[in-house]
Amino acid sequence: MKKELLYQGKAKHVYLTNEPNELILSYKDQATAFNGKKKEIVTGKGRFNNLISAKIFDYLTKENVPNHFIKSLNDTEQLVEQTSIIPLEVVVRNLATGSIVKRLGFKEKTVFQPALVELYYKNDALDDPIINDQHAFLLTHTTKEEIELIKGYALKINQLLRPYFEQIDVQLVDFKLEFGRNQNGEIILADEISPDTCRLWDLETEMSLDKDVFRQGTGDLLPVYQEILNRLGEIK
Amino acid sequence: MKKELLYQGKAKHVYLTNEPNELILSYKDQATAFNGKKKEIVTGKGRFNNLISAKIFDYLTKENVPNHFIKSLNDTEQLVEQTSIIPLEVVVRNLATGSIVKRLGFKEKTVFQPALVELYYKNDALDDPIINDQHAFLLTHTTKEEIELIKGYALKINQLLRPYFEQIDVQLVDFKLEFGRNQNGEIILADEISPDTCRLWDLETEMSLDKDVFRQGTGDLLPVYQEILNRLGEIK
Ligand SMILES: Nc1ncnc2c1ncn2[C@@H]1O[C@H](COP(=O)(O)OP(=O)(O)O)[C@@H](O)[C@H]1O
Ligand SMILES: Nc1ncnc2c1ncn2[C@@H]1O[C@H](COP(=O)(O)OP(=O)(O)O)[C@@H](O)[C@H]1O
Ligand SMILES: [Mg+2]
Ligand SMILES: [Mg+2]
Repeated sequence: MKKELLYQGKAKHVYLTNEPNELILSYKDQATAFNGKKKEIVTGKGRFNNLISAKIFDYLTKENVPNHFIKSLNDTEQLVEQTSIIPLEVVVRNLATGSIVKRLGFKEKTVFQPALVELYYKNDALDDPIINDQHAFLLTHTTKEEIELIKGYALKINQLLRPYFEQIDVQLVDFKLEFGRNQNGEIILADEISPDTCRLWDLETEMSLDKDVFRQGTGDLLPVYQEILNRLGEIK
Repeated sequence: MKKELLYQGKAKHVYLTNEPNELILSYKDQATAFNGKKKEIVTGKGRFNNLISAKIFDYLTKENVPNHFIKSLNDTEQLVEQTSIIPLEVVVRNLATGSIVKRLGFKEKTVFQPALVELYYKNDALDDPIINDQHAFLLTHTTKEEIELIKGYALKINQLLRPYFEQIDVQLVDFKLEFGRNQNGEIILADEISPDTCRLWDLETEMSLDKDVFRQGTGDLLPVYQEILNRLGEIK
C-alpha cells in the first residue's frame, strides 16, 4: 500500500499510496527547532505526534472542519487526503509569548481577544517570514476570499480547540496550521496539530507541555508529549 | 513665533509655536539610514527636504488629500498642523526592490499592480518591524476602519504622485507615509514626502534620485536631491 516517497520535511515522510488522492504521513523520531538549526533524534516522538494529531483531527472532523485526515494506520503513520499545500503557516495566538513578545514588544501573556491571526510565508530559505494578506495573495496564488476563508477556519479551529484542551486542564496559548487544496479545489486543513505545532500550558502551573521544552532545553520532550497523549485519552 | 522644541527625530526638529495647534518642522542637515546606524552631516540637505516636501504637500492639498501642511516659512522650515502621530510607517510599493526582495524573495522590479501596501510599527527600539492589520489595531490604538482609511489614503496618494512624478521623468518606485490625528480627531497625512522617504528612479536610466545613493554609498546625495527639486520646479 505504501509506495514511493513523495517528499519529506523536518518531521514527516510523505508517501504515495495505491489510491491516487491519498497519502501516508509517516512521523519521524526527530525534533527540530529554530527552522531546523537545532535538531535531535528523540526515539518515540513520532508515535506521540502521530497519535495526538490523529486524535485532534478526529475531533475536528466530528465538528465539521474540512480536513485531510482519513484514518490512523499504525503507531507512527496515518492516511490523509492528498493536497497541494498552500505555503502558509497560519498562526493563531490567544496569549502573547515567544516571537511576538520579542518582535513587537507585547508584554508576556498579553491576552488577545479576539485571537490574533498571523500569516507566515512557509519558505525555509527565507526563514518563514511574517507577511500580510496582500503578500499572501501574491506569494501563494490565493485570492482575498481564500485568505479570508483560511483565517475564518483558523479562528473556528481555535474556538473548538480551546475548550477541548481546557477539559484536560491545558491552556491553548498559540498554534500553527497549514492548509492545502484537495483534488476538488477545496481548501482544507492539512499537516498536523500536536505539541510540535501548539503551545500548550498546564492550566494550573503554566508549565510548557509542548516543544518549548526542547526549544528552550528545559527538559525531556517524551514525558511531556506522553502527558498530553494521556490527558487526551481521558476525552471520549 | 518658534517656541520650545517639542521633540526631534533623525531628520527634523519639531517646535511649538504661539498657535496651540501649529508646529514648525525644522529640517536638519543630517542623513541617516538603516534606522540610524549609518549617519552623516550633509550640509544643505535640510533645505532640499523642506522645499521638496512643501512642493509635494502643496500638490496633495490641491488634490484634496487631508494633510498637515500649512505653509513654508523659509528654506529649512515649514508650518504644519499639530497631530498625534500614529506610530505606523505606511509603505506603498509599485515595484519590488530593497527589503521586500531580500525578505520575501520577490524578483527585483516585480510590478505590484495594484500597488502593495505594507504597515510597519514605527518603533526605533524594535527596528520598525513589519506588522499586519490586526497588530496595527493593537499597537496603535486604531480601529479596523481607521486602518482601512489610512490604506485608502496611501493608495490614493500613490495614484496622485505617480503621474505627478512621471511628468518630470521620474518613476515612483515606493514610498513611506506617516499619518496623525489632528485636534478634531481626524486622521490626516503628516511628516514629509521627499527623496528621504521615496524611491525615485530616473524614468530612462533607472538611476536612483533618492536616499539610496547614501544608503548604498554610490554617490553624493546633494546633486541628486537638487535634481529632484529642479525637476519639480518645472511643474506649475
Ligand atoms: N495532506 C497533505 N498533502 C500534501 N502534503 C502534506 C499534507 N499534509 C502535510 N503535508 C506536507 O508534508 C510535508 C512534510 O511535513 P513536515 O515534516 O512537517 O515538513 P516541514 O519540515 O515543512 O515542517 C510538509 O511540506 C507538509 O506541508
Ligand atoms: N504634523 C505633525 N505633528 C506631530 N508630529 C509630527 C508631524 N509631522 C511629523 N511629525 C513627527 O516629527 C518627528 C520628527 O521627524 P523625523 O526627524 O523624521 O523623525 P524620525 O527619526 O522618527 O524619522 C517624528 O516623530 C514625526 O513622526
Ligand atoms: Mg511541519
Ligand atoms: Mg522621519
